[in-house]
Amino acid sequence: MHCPDQKGIVAKVTAFIHNNRGNILALDQHVDKQDQHFFMRIKWALDGFAIPREKIADYFQTLIAIPYQMEFQLHFTDQVPRMAIFVSQFSHCLYDILSRWESGEWDVQIPLIISNHQDMSSIAERFNIPYHYLPVLPGNKAEQEQKQMELLEDAGIDFIVLARYMQILTEQFTARYPNRIINIHHSFLPAFAGAKPYHAAFQRGVKIIGATCHYVTSELDEGPIIEQDVVRVSHKDSLDTLIRKGKDLEKIVLSRGIFQHLKYKTLVYKNKTIVFS
Amino acid sequence: MHCPDQKGIVAKVTAFIHNNRGNILALDQHVDKQDQHFFMRIKWALDGFAIPREKIADYFQTLIAIPYQMEFQLHFTDQVPRMAIFVSQFSHCLYDILSRWESGEWDVQIPLIISNHQDMSSIAERFNIPYHYLPVLPGNKAEQEQKQMELLEDAGIDFIVLARYMQILTEQFTARYPNRIINIHHSFLPAFAGAKPYHAAFQRGVKIIGATCHYVTSELDEGPIIEQDVVRVSHKDSLDTLIRKGKDLEKIVLSRGIFQHLKYKTLVYKNKTIVFS
Amino acid sequence: MHCPDQKGIVAKVTAFIHNNRGNILALDQHVDKQDQHFFMRIKWALDGFAIPREKIADYFQTLIAIPYQMEFQLHFTDQVPRMAIFVSQFSHCLYDILSRWESGEWDVQIPLIISNHQDMSSIAERFNIPYHYLPVLPGNKAEQEQKQMELLEDAGIDFIVLARYMQILTEQFTARYPNRIINIHHSFLPAFAGAKPYHAAFQRGVKIIGATCHYVTSELDEGPIIEQDVVRVSHKDSLDTLIRKGKDLEKIVLSRGIFQHLKYKTLVYKNKTIVFS
Amino acid sequence: MHCPDQKGIVAKVTAFIHNNRGNILALDQHVDKQDQHFFMRIKWALDGFAIPREKIADYFQTLIAIPYQMEFQLHFTDQVPRMAIFVSQFSHCLYDILSRWESGEWDVQIPLIISNHQDMSSIAERFNIPYHYLPVLPGNKAEQEQKQMELLEDAGIDFIVLARYMQILTEQFTARYPNRIINIHHSFLPAFAGAKPYHAAFQRGVKIIGATCHYVTSELDEGPIIEQDVVRVSHKDSLDTLIRKGKDLEKIVLSRGIFQHLKYKTLVYKNKTIVFS
Repeated sequence: MHCPDQKGIVAKVTAFIHNNRGNILALDQHVDKQDQHFFMRIKWALDGFAIPREKIADYFQTLIAIPYQMEFQLHFTDQVPRMAIFVSQFSHCLYDILSRWESGEWDVQIPLIISNHQDMSSIAERFNIPYHYLPVLPGNKAEQEQKQMELLEDAGIDFIVLARYMQILTEQFTARYPNRIINIHHSFLPAFAGAKPYHAAFQRGVKIIGATCHYVTSELDEGPIIEQDVVRVSHKDSLDTLIRKGKDLEKIVLSRGIFQHLKYKTLVYKNKTIVFS
Repeated sequence: MHCPDQKGIVAKVTAFIHNNRGNILALDQHVDKQDQHFFMRIKWALDGFAIPREKIADYFQTLIAIPYQMEFQLHFTDQVPRMAIFVSQFSHCLYDILSRWESGEWDVQIPLIISNHQDMSSIAERFNIPYHYLPVLPGNKAEQEQKQMELLEDAGIDFIVLARYMQILTEQFTARYPNRIINIHHSFLPAFAGAKPYHAAFQRGVKIIGATCHYVTSELDEGPIIEQDVVRVSHKDSLDTLIRKGKDLEKIVLSRGIFQHLKYKTLVYKNKTIVFS
Repeated sequence: MHCPDQKGIVAKVTAFIHNNRGNILALDQHVDKQDQHFFMRIKWALDGFAIPREKIADYFQTLIAIPYQMEFQLHFTDQVPRMAIFVSQFSHCLYDILSRWESGEWDVQIPLIISNHQDMSSIAERFNIPYHYLPVLPGNKAEQEQKQMELLEDAGIDFIVLARYMQILTEQFTARYPNRIINIHHSFLPAFAGAKPYHAAFQRGVKIIGATCHYVTSELDEGPIIEQDVVRVSHKDSLDTLIRKGKDLEKIVLSRGIFQHLKYKTLVYKNKTIVFS
Repeated sequence: MHCPDQKGIVAKVTAFIHNNRGNILALDQHVDKQDQHFFMRIKWALDGFAIPREKIADYFQTLIAIPYQMEFQLHFTDQVPRMAIFVSQFSHCLYDILSRWESGEWDVQIPLIISNHQDMSSIAERFNIPYHYLPVLPGNKAEQEQKQMELLEDAGIDFIVLARYMQILTEQFTARYPNRIINIHHSFLPAFAGAKPYHAAFQRGVKIIGATCHYVTSELDEGPIIEQDVVRVSHKDSLDTLIRKGKDLEKIVLSRGIFQHLKYKTLVYKNKTIVFS
């Protein structure tokens, strides 16, 4: 939830939960002092909660959200999110995601994988996940995105992960999934936005390289950042070893970002991401 | 504040502040699920607060702490903490602390520096801080600690920083300042506790060295950890370069730990430190 | 190569290569000043080299190693090393290794996987790698190790990776593969050696956790360290989240260590590992 | 030294030293495979060296540098480099530098400090270093730089450190000290070059901030990078706490860069810095 900062919000919200016999399991709040804006994530147990599950949103809306001009989302942990993976020709992020899913580390469903190449289809097959090959050629992007959106719609997808998907999505596409498309960019943004960041990093002679997980917006590589990490490099690193070291960052940083999203710990406000603890 | 975890604590505490017209500026809470124990730090503005400043502790005690079996501390930000520095022969932590204090980065008073050596006296002089030289020799430790305690008492010291003070304090001394003596140990505890950690790290061939800021207890190097950090080393590092690299860690990690303490962001429970955000 | 430090070694070795028309591609040397011991790794191109490939070791031995009391190893990059994987019930390291191998990131052969559990057999199957299930029960360890050694022998294995293999190897076994068994320990050694390091780290309240890749010796968790890395944790981390965060470290640190070994960049001396650049 | 890569360079150079009875203490070489260019740093002991100290450069030039089209520098460790510090209004880098110098951690002379403000003069005084106040106003920059250059000339300065000096140097000035002016930029370059990098980082919502130590060229913030480091931040960080955390990075990263320069471990080639080990 978030709203203009006012006195008494925490008291009001926690009283709403407590008075209805909910037990708060986690609470993290943040005040943006520059913008005078308030943010909070609360998780509570529903056992014995006085308001029926399907009416909680209504009650919360009426009693709290409207008076406080608050926007909020309500999620239930027994509803497992449905995630689509877009991939091109690299397997490292894909394997990282699928192995977490398979081992039960993540509570997520993966109804489909979409790719503009056929290379990863055998991996999808091994994990028994439907693989849709939709090559993107000059002139057919709009058409292919249309097919993608139908597939996503049919599969009831909640959010999309671009696991090194090497196509720029159109504005129509990104607008349809606001803060629901997660990308990994292979640089420490805003350094080296755009194409070939490792080449640019090598050229510039940086001593550290990075990777950035962010939500996709219509501005390329400008979306709200969820997670970043870095690794030390040196003059001894060739372009090839930069790329090899960077891949390890990419998969770990992407997976961390997905995990925060899966746990509903992210909240986007003015192109920045609050990541609750 | 901390207490056994129960339903409704956050609601109760925030209502206490809100109903008395306090404005919450920061709130961070934590539940130790294993111990079913609740922890919270709240900072609120006193302008217009209904309860007079000097009675807040009483009211809080009666209305909240007693019913919830809660322990709490109350601090006012206009009361600047008074810190003593103990130092031996190394200047790096001392300079780091004094330069932060001088530049106004920290809101703290430093009424005195105590040392078992004379080496650092000229630095103290330049910053106009009284320097007490109390050499510790075989047989006179109890006597010197007595003098130290008198000095600390007279100066109204709130807490003590051991800025690479190379003497082990007696149990009488440490017992007098529970969670109020901050030490920097030059290793990544619990690795290499005790004397000569860099020698031990060099001998073991570790690829990363660390430093640990912790509260001092009667058990050497076993107190609750406030902050740690590390730096990468390699086979090319000699003992000397380990020590040189370690010094940078020591000063930064110690200063971070002091800062959290100064901001009342630390809470010790069962030999672990909660560091509120 | 390594030997007691003496004047002129680099000149002697590089002259040997140059005079025989070899072209040095990489050279990294190190002198342990405390021990007065010299270490070097040289990689050179064999095109046009005057000494036939199969006689290089002999010549080097006679002309350089004997006079300088030097020990050395000679490897050819067109001989792909053969690696065995030992695994128990966790898949994260296994997937990390297999996906690197499959994508061609590593130049290695994996003729077999050995496990004391059946859980990972389906993963081995998907990658078409023979999986040998050898359960270790009270009383049968010697017998099972005997079978393991036969399998390793038959497969012409060069080195072994313990990818979270949860059995302690006997001294007979480890003695047979000196500096050729690579383990990942899920702590920042020497902190938390032995069983259940995450439990111990949680109990101690550390602010950083680590993982250590090392060669296995007869002393448990005491072998020469190849690589370590760490990740920041806090009081908010439960034992479960420590374990989850630690897994990411384990797989990356193990894979980095394997990669250095694969490239013949490691040299063990007095229980420490030199990792050439 | 550096030159186009050719067969036999290492053999040639090490033979030159060995045949003249020098003992190599450290050797690090690097080949830029893309550019086919060779780089090496060698340190050797002069005791018993056959060539007189003052003739080494001549001999090396004639016998090696000319035939191999090599550029080289020769330094003697008993000649202590002379460093000038430029500072404006922040003391953190200045104290970090002066305390290292005072404690003997660095082998350097500091004949003068130059500033466009008077704020730091009392610190200079305490360390007994002459402080030159040269305010830079609209219209007098060329004139003040002239005075600076005279001061530097008179003091026999080898290199200049900009310890958060908030003036852009003119091209005349920077051209006079190629690869001899070391700056600290308070961002992870190339991200957030130019003014107010912390404001820009805060605005962009990055999850990590950095600092960059580089040689100054005529292109602002585009010079060869010597060292970088980063620290994790979050949405909870305000602009003020970004600045506070960044200061710790700035001083450590600047001091590391200076140290490498002091040890003659840096070599600039095509706007990138090789930092020898």
